[in-house]
Amino acid sequence: MPANKQVVLASRPTGAVTRENFRIVEAPAASPGEGEVLVRNEWLSLDPYMRGRMSDAKSYAAHVEIGGLMVGQTVGEVVESRHPGYRNGDKVLAPLGWQLYGVAKGKELALVDASRVPASYYLGILGMPGMTAWFGLFEIGQPKAGETVVVSAASGAVGSVVGQLAKQQGCRVVGIAGGRAKCDYVVNELGFDGCVDYKAGRVLDDLRAACPNGIDVDFENVGGEILDTVLRVMNQNGRIIVCGLIAEYNATQPYGYRNLRSILVNRIRMQGMIVFDWHKRYGEALADLGSRVAAGKMRYRESVVEGLENAPQGLIDLLAGRNFGKQLVKLA
Amino acid sequence: MPANKQVVLASRPTGAVTRENFRIVEAPAASPGEGEVLVRNEWLSLDPYMRGRMSDAKSYAAHVEIGGLMVGQTVGEVVESRHPGYRNGDKVLAPLGWQLYGVAKGKELALVDASRVPASYYLGILGMPGMTAWFGLFEIGQPKAGETVVVSAASGAVGSVVGQLAKQQGCRVVGIAGGRAKCDYVVNELGFDGCVDYKAGRVLDDLRAACPNGIDVDFENVGGEILDTVLRVMNQNGRIIVCGLIAEYNATQPYGYRNLRSILVNRIRMQGMIVFDWHKRYGEALADLGSRVAAGKMRYRESVVEGLENAPQGLIDLLAGRNFGKQLVKLA
Repeated sequence: MPANKQVVLASRPTGAVTRENFRIVEAPAASPGEGEVLVRNEWLSLDPYMRGRMSDAKSYAAHVEIGGLMVGQTVGEVVESRHPGYRNGDKVLAPLGWQLYGVAKGKELALVDASRVPASYYLGILGMPGMTAWFGLFEIGQPKAGETVVVSAASGAVGSVVGQLAKQQGCRVVGIAGGRAKCDYVVNELGFDGCVDYKAGRVLDDLRAACPNGIDVDFENVGGEILDTVLRVMNQNGRIIVCGLIAEYNATQPYGYRNLRSILVNRIRMQGMIVFDWHKRYGEALADLGSRVAAGKMRYRESVVEGLENAPQGLIDLLAGRNFGKQLVKLA
Repeated sequence: MPANKQVVLASRPTGAVTRENFRIVEAPAASPGEGEVLVRNEWLSLDPYMRGRMSDAKSYAAHVEIGGLMVGQTVGEVVESRHPGYRNGDKVLAPLGWQLYGVAKGKELALVDASRVPASYYLGILGMPGMTAWFGLFEIGQPKAGETVVVSAASGAVGSVVGQLAKQQGCRVVGIAGGRAKCDYVVNELGFDGCVDYKAGRVLDDLRAACPNGIDVDFENVGGEILDTVLRVMNQNGRIIVCGLIAEYNATQPYGYRNLRSILVNRIRMQGMIVFDWHKRYGEALADLGSRVAAGKMRYRESVVEGLENAPQGLIDLLAGRNFGKQLVKLA
């Protein structure tokens, strides 16, 4: 058996995540049993939801136990198969977590077609972030041509897809991102109509200037002061997709939202989403996104950390907004 | 022309409404022009939304100007008609505001059938509050039998109807009200399964005890700490109808909601409503509510203030939760 390395949860963070919350352990990789497959992970996806799994606060999914393997989606290569659906060399999407090798049941895996797009795309634009963008925007946001759509964390894995889809829908699209470089990327590369740099400290004024007709749809990835400010610019019958509240994940005190009255006055529909609720319909979104990607209609950027031992710092940076594009760890 | 009395807005309130914000003026009643009707108002409805009209903050409707007539729905009798659809003695629902007499266009009026229910019911259970309860609960809340529905301001004009409708739908229904007398009424007279007295100071514990299976639908009339606490007990896929935020109307600082993360974690749909958005479908709700009332299925309580000069105090008491049931002013 090859030598395996894993990142496990050493302690629960209080406030911001630190490297001390993680520990690297080594052991031989397990052997696949009947119906199982041994995968050598090539890519690990880092996502904001992982902060929730490190906490023991009630959430929509079980938390990671102390000493337990950090969870996460991977893309890798089958190196030993005891399942008839997989052969050595197949590229698969797997829920194998922060480790170099892992064993999964065949039914937990999905073959990925790496002939037209890089395999890593199945962790991003053609993976969970892409599904999140697609279902959240179209199913909850329901944007109509001519409406104004705002997307926070606009250069990120989800936000960048949301904005491009909304733009292709005929909407005015305004991003919110941290720093000039990200805002330039959002406007010049992704084609948004505008982008508010929240680090410039004038979010309300800048948002009003960028959205002269108000906001009809807000795809919220950040929360906190960003969302509270967006509420002040929302239009009547607006929709807010609450997809992530990354501003709150590391906070020891929850943010106090002062502009909820806008929901009443403007008859806003604010709805929380977890992409797994749509898992039976992933194929539908994948077909649509896949054809847009294959047609060259979607810009997509990856931010790569090299090596499993750097995954903790990768997550820390992601939660602080220091990544730029879909955050991945290259494992092999 | 008969002598008319009006209550006008003397000044805008800062925080709580006071009697000094109103002034009574006297003048002869106007004469109806062609197509108009002179109505002697018998009942004036007092409602929380009036607080919003007294303010010049942006809202869903125009505010009352200083020196302008306070707005409101009335029920009265036609005393002079220059419209073919109305005759002297007809009982009508009218948007005539805080005054003894008023002139309205025929198309602004609706005949009310006072043969089976008191005419005042058209300001309450068969009026705007009843419509609010019906559309909010059924169209936004969509409660299913067996689910738990929570209603704040449970003994009020809207809350009492919401709870009874939800109960008839097969739901577990828990009210939130201020004081033992209101809670007793909500449980013993209206038939709710439980009622939390928010004045007892243990809202979270009491709510959890009254809702052992969590909350699926919250019909929110109060907001502030009540809503923030409800968010902690909401179930997955819960719905929150934001109908009123009376706790905030008199506040000089908006409340800071700390539990919005529940919307994400529990995939909650929170939606603001203004009943006027459903005005084309009022007939549908009126037919349903009217038949329930006629069949003796709905309990309904009115709180009556005598005389136009006492209307300001009536609104002040309503906003402080000192009313008990639908608040009316008897004008004649």
